[in-house]
Amino acid sequence: MGKSPTSDTFKAALIVIGNEILSGRTQDSNTPWIAEKLIDHGVLIKEVRIIPDEREAIIQTVRDLKDKVDYLFTTGGIGPTHDDITAECIAEAFGLEMEQNEQAFRMLEEYYGLENLTPPRAKMAMVPRGAKLIPNPVSAAPGFIVGNVHVMAGVPRIMQGMFMHVLDVLKPGKPMLSNTVSCSMPESQLAEDMTRLQAKYPEIEIGSYPHYRGGMLGLSIVLRSTDNDKLDEATQEVLALIRRFGEEPRAISLRSSGKAAVG
Amino acid sequence: MGKSPTSDTFKAALIVIGNEILSGRTQDSNTPWIAEKLIDHGVLIKEVRIIPDEREAIIQTVRDLKDKVDYLFTTGGIGPTHDDITAECIAEAFGLEMEQNEQAFRMLEEYYGLENLTPPRAKMAMVPRGAKLIPNPVSAAPGFIVGNVHVMAGVPRIMQGMFMHVLDVLKPGKPMLSNTVSCSMPESQLAEDMTRLQAKYPEIEIGSYPHYRGGMLGLSIVLRSTDNDKLDEATQEVLALIRRFGEEPRAISLRSSGKAAVG
Repeated sequence: MGKSPTSDTFKAALIVIGNEILSGRTQDSNTPWIAEKLIDHGVLIKEVRIIPDEREAIIQTVRDLKDKVDYLFTTGGIGPTHDDITAECIAEAFGLEMEQNEQAFRMLEEYYGLENLTPPRAKMAMVPRGAKLIPNPVSAAPGFIVGNVHVMAGVPRIMQGMFMHVLDVLKPGKPMLSNTVSCSMPESQLAEDMTRLQAKYPEIEIGSYPHYRGGMLGLSIVLRSTDNDKLDEATQEVLALIRRFGEEPRAISLRSSGKAAVG
Repeated sequence: MGKSPTSDTFKAALIVIGNEILSGRTQDSNTPWIAEKLIDHGVLIKEVRIIPDEREAIIQTVRDLKDKVDYLFTTGGIGPTHDDITAECIAEAFGLEMEQNEQAFRMLEEYYGLENLTPPRAKMAMVPRGAKLIPNPVSAAPGFIVGNVHVMAGVPRIMQGMFMHVLDVLKPGKPMLSNTVSCSMPESQLAEDMTRLQAKYPEIEIGSYPHYRGGMLGLSIVLRSTDNDKLDEATQEVLALIRRFGEEPRAISLRSSGKAAVG
């Protein structure tokens, strides 16, 4: 991609915390899910870091990223077991004390019953001082927000429940629109024209993605911008380009207002 | 995870380069595939960074990571189009000039035919001076190695072909073994015993991973170590622990020599 996203969107980074992702045991499905929700909200992920459940790695990564983006998100490591150390690392990264959050404690008490609120469960009410809670509609133990850092669970169903609450309070940017044109041409055949198009439309990210499906080489050209009209115009040029080579696009998916479809 | 992997393994990091991954459009399937191959080879991924096809991001990330690990891998951005800028960024990160690699040029010539070796295709023979090529058994254009950095394609089928060549030349560490025990208990019920077990077996990484499958909450306990006997011993303790609560493990998957299975 030749061009950074336009300045009317917000920048985000995501820290995926968990050895199970780094070992390949668990596929990280949270990144694409969060990325798509954020794009519609006008927020673009600029970097994802997948790191182990290790104290120094978490603290350092939070410190590295929090001032580089508008919003930082973390997933993983906020449960009741010995390997759940995210909350205390966030506190350390911000130089905050940990405290028992009374609202979080009541949420856990209501969910488990006071008689079953064992020390490991009560630990999930410990958050950095002053943190704002993110409700957990699935299993009670909340996430939290400190500064621009949004700390969520790693289990996808729980993370998704928390994220919908986050979206309610996240200041939105201008939604990023994207059009995709797929064809059967080798990308090297289109490369020079694509370079020319990217130079002509600096406000559009133009990406070229070859893939194999069913043993066939295919190509997806993806155009992204917050500028609907420019996006439409550039997409029409891509369609005309493919047809000039005597080919027909195999699939066209448009998020711009649609003039390109009849171009 | 309470414990870093033992010192008889090598450390690696992976840089996934591509806006299509950051936008959520494409699921990154390379990370788990590479991670599993490396674990069997005694190499552990300590960090993955997913970054955009942007010059400064690529250069800075390579510089950040290359001296922190034994092996650094990158995927993506080595094709013929304007958004394929990985090779020149690697050169910049190492302070090297780019040069046309004659061996790479001949590979491309043989694949495309000299008459079809257009400038965008010939660009794929440009690598940092002194780079060692990684053969591409699928589509000719090679990856390359500079220092400890292994630069590969992003298309999974091509990356996998390249990676098998990389494994041939990568000095191996001691393979990491892992045992997984799954049960239906909430992790908070096992938390205190797991903390005790982790303290008793510092050479073993013990992870606790809750999940929802078919609407049911389940728990996987994963034990990892290069020490077969200790791993077996700790796994037996986990099995005994679950049975002490009157539960039976739902599934047991063992990579250690197997005594735990009958424990």
